[in-house]
Amino acid sequence: MSEVYRFSKTVTDGDGTMRGLLGGKGAGLAEMCRMGVPVPPGFTISTRCCISYLDEGGQLPEDVRADVMEKMKWLEAELGKSLSGDGPPLLLSVRSGARVSMPGMMDTILNLGLNDRTVAKLAEQSGNERFAYDSFRRFIQMYSNVVLGLSHSDFERILEDVREDEGVDLDSQISLDGLKRIVEEYKDLVLEETDQAFPEDPYDQLWGAINAVFESWNNDRAILYRKINNIDHKWGTAVNVQSMVFGNMGDSSGTGVCFSRDPSTGEPGPYGEYLRNAQGEDVVAGIRTPFKIDDPNDPESMAACWPEVYQQLLDTLGVLEKHFGDMQDTEFTVENGRLFLLQTRNGKRTSRASLRIAIDLYKEGLIDKHDAVRKVEPDSMSQLLASEFDQDAKQKLLDSGRLLGRGLNAGPGAATGVVTLSAEKAVELQEEGIPVILVREETSPEDIAGMHVSSGILTQRGGMTSHAAVVARGMGKPCVVGCTTMVVHTAEAAIQFGKRTIREGAFISIDGTTGEILEGKIPTTASPLIQQLSAGTVEPGSEGEQFALLMSWVDEIAKIKVRTNADAPADAKIARLLGAVGIGLCRTEHMFFGEDRIQHVRKMILAADESTRNEALAALQPFQENDFYELFKEMNGMPVTIRLLDPPLHEFLPHGDSLIEGLAHSMGITSTAVRHRVKDLEEANPMLGHRGCRLGISHPSIYRMQVAAIVGAVVRARAEGIDAQAEIMVPLVGAQAELDKVKASIQPVVREADLDLPIGTMIEIPRAALTADEIAESADFFSFGTNDLTQCGMGLSRDDSGSFLPLYIDAGIYARDPFKSIDQKGIGKLVSMAADMGRKTRPGIKLGVCGEHGGDPDSIRFFYKVGLDYVSCSPYRVPIAKLAAARASLEEGA
Amino acid sequence: MSEVYRFSKTVTDGDGTMRGLLGGKGAGLAEMCRMGVPVPPGFTISTRCCISYLDEGGQLPEDVRADVMEKMKWLEAELGKSLSGDGPPLLLSVRSGARVSMPGMMDTILNLGLNDRTVAKLAEQSGNERFAYDSFRRFIQMYSNVVLGLSHSDFERILEDVREDEGVDLDSQISLDGLKRIVEEYKDLVLEETDQAFPEDPYDQLWGAINAVFESWNNDRAILYRKINNIDHKWGTAVNVQSMVFGNMGDSSGTGVCFSRDPSTGEPGPYGEYLRNAQGEDVVAGIRTPFKIDDPNDPESMAACWPEVYQQLLDTLGVLEKHFGDMQDTEFTVENGRLFLLQTRNGKRTSRASLRIAIDLYKEGLIDKHDAVRKVEPDSMSQLLASEFDQDAKQKLLDSGRLLGRGLNAGPGAATGVVTLSAEKAVELQEEGIPVILVREETSPEDIAGMHVSSGILTQRGGMTSHAAVVARGMGKPCVVGCTTMVVHTAEAAIQFGKRTIREGAFISIDGTTGEILEGKIPTTASPLIQQLSAGTVEPGSEGEQFALLMSWVDEIAKIKVRTNADAPADAKIARLLGAVGIGLCRTEHMFFGEDRIQHVRKMILAADESTRNEALAALQPFQENDFYELFKEMNGMPVTIRLLDPPLHEFLPHGDSLIEGLAHSMGITSTAVRHRVKDLEEANPMLGHRGCRLGISHPSIYRMQVAAIVGAVVRARAEGIDAQAEIMVPLVGAQAELDKVKASIQPVVREADLDLPIGTMIEIPRAALTADEIAESADFFSFGTNDLTQCGMGLSRDDSGSFLPLYIDAGIYARDPFKSIDQKGIGKLVSMAADMGRKTRPGIKLGVCGEHGGDPDSIRFFYKVGLDYVSCSPYRVPIAKLAAARASLEEGA
Repeated sequence: MSEVYRFSKTVTDGDGTMRGLLGGKGAGLAEMCRMGVPVPPGFTISTRCCISYLDEGGQLPEDVRADVMEKMKWLEAELGKSLSGDGPPLLLSVRSGARVSMPGMMDTILNLGLNDRTVAKLAEQSGNERFAYDSFRRFIQMYSNVVLGLSHSDFERILEDVREDEGVDLDSQISLDGLKRIVEEYKDLVLEETDQAFPEDPYDQLWGAINAVFESWNNDRAILYRKINNIDHKWGTAVNVQSMVFGNMGDSSGTGVCFSRDPSTGEPGPYGEYLRNAQGEDVVAGIRTPFKIDDPNDPESMAACWPEVYQQLLDTLGVLEKHFGDMQDTEFTVENGRLFLLQTRNGKRTSRASLRIAIDLYKEGLIDKHDAVRKVEPDSMSQLLASEFDQDAKQKLLDSGRLLGRGLNAGPGAATGVVTLSAEKAVELQEEGIPVILVREETSPEDIAGMHVSSGILTQRGGMTSHAAVVARGMGKPCVVGCTTMVVHTAEAAIQFGKRTIREGAFISIDGTTGEILEGKIPTTASPLIQQLSAGTVEPGSEGEQFALLMSWVDEIAKIKVRTNADAPADAKIARLLGAVGIGLCRTEHMFFGEDRIQHVRKMILAADESTRNEALAALQPFQENDFYELFKEMNGMPVTIRLLDPPLHEFLPHGDSLIEGLAHSMGITSTAVRHRVKDLEEANPMLGHRGCRLGISHPSIYRMQVAAIVGAVVRARAEGIDAQAEIMVPLVGAQAELDKVKASIQPVVREADLDLPIGTMIEIPRAALTADEIAESADFFSFGTNDLTQCGMGLSRDDSGSFLPLYIDAGIYARDPFKSIDQKGIGKLVSMAADMGRKTRPGIKLGVCGEHGGDPDSIRFFYKVGLDYVSCSPYRVPIAKLAAARASLEEGA
Repeated sequence: MSEVYRFSKTVTDGDGTMRGLLGGKGAGLAEMCRMGVPVPPGFTISTRCCISYLDEGGQLPEDVRADVMEKMKWLEAELGKSLSGDGPPLLLSVRSGARVSMPGMMDTILNLGLNDRTVAKLAEQSGNERFAYDSFRRFIQMYSNVVLGLSHSDFERILEDVREDEGVDLDSQISLDGLKRIVEEYKDLVLEETDQAFPEDPYDQLWGAINAVFESWNNDRAILYRKINNIDHKWGTAVNVQSMVFGNMGDSSGTGVCFSRDPSTGEPGPYGEYLRNAQGEDVVAGIRTPFKIDDPNDPESMAACWPEVYQQLLDTLGVLEKHFGDMQDTEFTVENGRLFLLQTRNGKRTSRASLRIAIDLYKEGLIDKHDAVRKVEPDSMSQLLASEFDQDAKQKLLDSGRLLGRGLNAGPGAATGVVTLSAEKAVELQEEGIPVILVREETSPEDIAGMHVSSGILTQRGGMTSHAAVVARGMGKPCVVGCTTMVVHTAEAAIQFGKRTIREGAFISIDGTTGEILEGKIPTTASPLIQQLSAGTVEPGSEGEQFALLMSWVDEIAKIKVRTNADAPADAKIARLLGAVGIGLCRTEHMFFGEDRIQHVRKMILAADESTRNEALAALQPFQENDFYELFKEMNGMPVTIRLLDPPLHEFLPHGDSLIEGLAHSMGITSTAVRHRVKDLEEANPMLGHRGCRLGISHPSIYRMQVAAIVGAVVRARAEGIDAQAEIMVPLVGAQAELDKVKASIQPVVREADLDLPIGTMIEIPRAALTADEIAESADFFSFGTNDLTQCGMGLSRDDSGSFLPLYIDAGIYARDPFKSIDQKGIGKLVSMAADMGRKTRPGIKLGVCGEHGGDPDSIRFFYKVGLDYVSCSPYRVPIAKLAAARASLEEGA
């Protein structure tokens, strides 16, 4: 079996499906040949050869060598030219091409085959001596650099000298003699540096080039690129040996790149640039400014200059798009008015373009719904939802050096406001109508109210799943966390970036999409998509219509449903707008932090006796009931899963001296007593402490109050004709008996109201997963709390992992942040075991996921495979999750 | 199939193996009958009937009723007596008897069958009218209480009135007329209270009694007892219906209880008490003082009074011991000089007696080695090793009201010393030769040095597996933890128990075996066993010899080996003395706390640059090397598993102001810098934070120093002819790549010295267990760290669980403290999965357990089933673990 695949108008061995073996470029060239698109003929040496070559310590296997020789003969015959220069000279390009594009990472050699003899023939044949020598000097320079390992700069210096001597600015202005002098000086340089003459034999050149491309697979930048992009080191690169066509043969020649649609907006029509009388490298080098392809008003545009070639390019792009069913990114060369395609691939694009192109291609009949769904990357959705800065205003600040620092881009979107160092202050300012950026070392649940009224959140510490990040994403707020170059001086009411101090009250702007922090104010707007959806009507052709259409297809395809994590009616509303089909996690404790409630919560915790505690609980109940009622109203007809109190009581107590004194005063007890209780509730490892259903068991009246509030809200809502679908979820269960104990306490409250609400459990402790068969006997549903399951299962505190987790990911110990994308091998095993065991006990048990992983596409794909019924994520991630869910179904089908 | 089993000299349906069906008492009676031991005949109604009875709502099934009637006819024929009183009256005892003894929990009725007619016959037949009426009044009183539910006290009052009227002190002094009056008044009382006459028909009496015994299975105290002792509620009780023999027929009659050996020392020979002219209840009631069985010098002893009966009892005990192969605990009655056995069972005994009896029975040829091993409860070993108080001196303090409080008995043994509130002070005092009790709110690793020099440890907080408890047990120190009635006032240098304040420097005594805390000094001695073993020679017949013999059998039987957790040579020495075959866990960090090291450790942590850090590490290395060398010397030829640094660095930094300033001064940096670093290293959940091999990866030089120290110590030891067997253990591994990373860093250090030391890993994070197949590719051995595995796997912080875990155990959510005995269903599943996966990857991989569960018999049984190679536990638990290991093997064989 040959490892060398030919492509030409007449014979093509490979095709577009063979990316693994031929690389993306080789497969594209083969496919184009099969389609009849004009492509300079050549052949592709397979990626398998690359691996053999590297495995054998840099030796091209003998049979491959023989095969290449044979294919060279075929190529010479095909073109009636000869590499050795016996007939008309055949020049070659030798280019790498891996399975996935690794732009600029590997090497390319053009004009291979030139030597003193063939350069003369080329001059003669083309009638253009200047072109021939220009090609020759380009070849020596490229080959010397790529194959012989000589520094680029030495060659550039020679070029520069000649330009200087001739008094010209551009390489294309150098005289023929100048070019000849350059060629000679280049050769001298090679001899000097390598002690060997520049190879004259074109076959020696060819073997050198092939080996160099193979070697380039393992250069440092390629290895690094693969690491970063999670590309298998065992894939290898193919080598494409292709006959040269020349864009540098004069003014009816040229070279360029062209997208079939605008990659930034998605607008149909060609989008690209070209240079006349140039080879590809000139476009990249950026010395000459290329012209547009498609602007007929610009006399330099291709449309204006070469209307026929332009039309041919247009037609070819149309054929390619139709064939590949996607927007194409092409490279082309025009040789004396003849168009050749050198490469085509699916083009990269912005999020916005991605959505529009998918919809347009469908409407144009080029793809079906499934393909359209496959074309939109789930994560790109978040950009469509994020608020935006006025770009000019932002640039102005950047240009004037007002960038203060960078943190992690934890919540996309743009926000501007005055620096505010406490949640209380944030609430005050918001009441005065002043926009606020809440800046904290780290946030804690006490800051929730402040976060809610802030335009954006900035923290000094914490990672992508820190409290600030999680809550901000849930609220859809721009958020930058872990800005370690910032110091928060609470006492001095200022923050500091290096030597720059920003006082509380001064304006800053944060870009949660990029992580930038800027001094000053920048105008922002809500994302157009959110504006359109909120308006309730979508204009035909608008992004809102595109979004709605895509989501309608997603709904047809996806088997795994998407709910949202929401505690407030406003969040629920946004999530529903974005397509959530229920609430998968309502955290009741967030409701406890409202100013009108927290005092009661604290009284409840500090109560010295049962009756005082019950009083406080009784005072809380109407608040809870109303909160639930509002949620039911918003989610009318959809399930609302309410988690009973989860965090340790300690989190609800005040810590500042004045707060403690205030509380003591309002309760009529001493502040020492309050302090004592605060200390009493402190824990060494609160994550593994007295929280979740452990509280429900030690303080049953809390859970009973919450359930009474749920029941009350359901009754009230239903009386008003609202279809309230409450599900009660018990957190932190580790054993069936534990869930039974809680149920025995709360179920009578439900039954008393003649209701029959499902009672389920979080599976968030490894032991719960390990004994899910038993727990399923008592649970109407499972919701995997994969955040805590990850923390416990990996022995990894989310709040503390910042000091070593980045190191772990750099070192490749964990491929990804396990709090962002579920660790499938370890934690995923617990999920899949528990799902299997749960279904075995209770066939059809409803299985869901709440927690950050519910909004991560890779995790969703995993949850789909495990067979879960739904994921739940923060409102702004709902479209991402839905798209990921649909794509998971499609992958399965594929 | 009959559910009613007869027993008599002539016909016996059951036997001693049928405890499940006949209960312990019924099976014992049947077995005795089969052996020819004199037993009053009767029959046993099976436990199955109890369950039927209770399931059918308190109805005796018709066929059982018929069966009982039939067996009654048989019994009447056997004895030539009649229950209905048509012939000589047959009187019955009706007693409960469950599978396991539930002393005093259920009911008994004696003298059943008496009524106005039969009492006269009994008087006539016995020629003892007083005896007949005494029996009658006893019967009415017992029956009324047990079956009719009337209060005992009303009957006692009538009895009292008569005694008063007759001017006598004892019931046995009441006149015949008095007894007759009592009978009449009893009957009136019953009529008055129940509106029904006392049942005259003996069969009515019988059915009432049988039902009452069945009902008693579900009385409150029986249910509670079963809960506490983990007895299945579905077992039920049997009913033993037995013909009465009478110990109250005069001075040649009597009743008593007798052990076949002294249950407190194990000394051979009968040990018991008896009363003449009495029924069983009189012995229990304690109104008359019983006499000894076996003191020939006491004229009231049975040996002196009834030499023939005494001899007969002795012979019977011999027969029973031989038959049952164990020390027996019997009840007997003598009726007119004739001995009857009413019950026999294996006797309860002290730890000391348990060991001696097992050895003696073996030497007497009554049992084999296996039986001997089965007879000694593993946990009883700890009592043999614990130091002891002078009992008289302790009692004197107790009598004078000097008991200060009670805590949890966390480390057995007795200690006396002056109250000392800081580790530093403890060290100072010890240097002055003053014995110290270290009293702390809780202990932390900083206290290790202080704990080491203290005679005992007392803490206010913490449970059985708190830091104090674990470390103290490891050191074999008496320890009382969680004394919540104590308040430690560090500032005032005093501790307080209620209103009593004890100043620092005053003597207290703590009993780690009972949990008591006393004011004042009590002389203590090391346990005799430890004294004998340390002396190195064991006297024949001594406890030391008994222990050695038992352990030699254990070594023959046990398949799972026992190592010890030891960091100090002294601990290693004790452990070896007690039979450890290696060190399974040497915690290197304990060595860091020595006064001569901690400064270097702190410098290493605070180092601003690499060279300062390396300097500090270089200074530490010789200390570590010498520590390891000493351990190798002590363990010559045995494996020593050394765990690399595990705790978070924060634990090594000082927290007090003066300590911080001292450190800053000695390092030439500001105390603010030190404070900053201390704060920097603080973690929200240190348990899940930057520790274990995470430190080894972020600070590779620490692990490399430690491994260099191990390597150095091995080389030095081997050069001296010591067979040093080091194993390097990497803690907190969660992924294969993580272990690989550590190995890549430390293995060169080992290879450089031309050594080949095994490198293994702890399995203590659930993810490690879940991916053990991969980890085994890189690990030479696994050691299950079940403490952390429990913490992570159950989401349960050991330090914080005190606020709810007791509640959980009370409520039966977890049957036992999962830190004491491994949670087999959940955490055990991880262990067994990991063991299976590990062996699949690497057949024969060595698997061990370190951590508290390694010393718990139930856990050891589980680890044996899973197929682990060894457990490792604190030195003083080594014999317990060994015995448990042997018993696990025997169970398997059985």
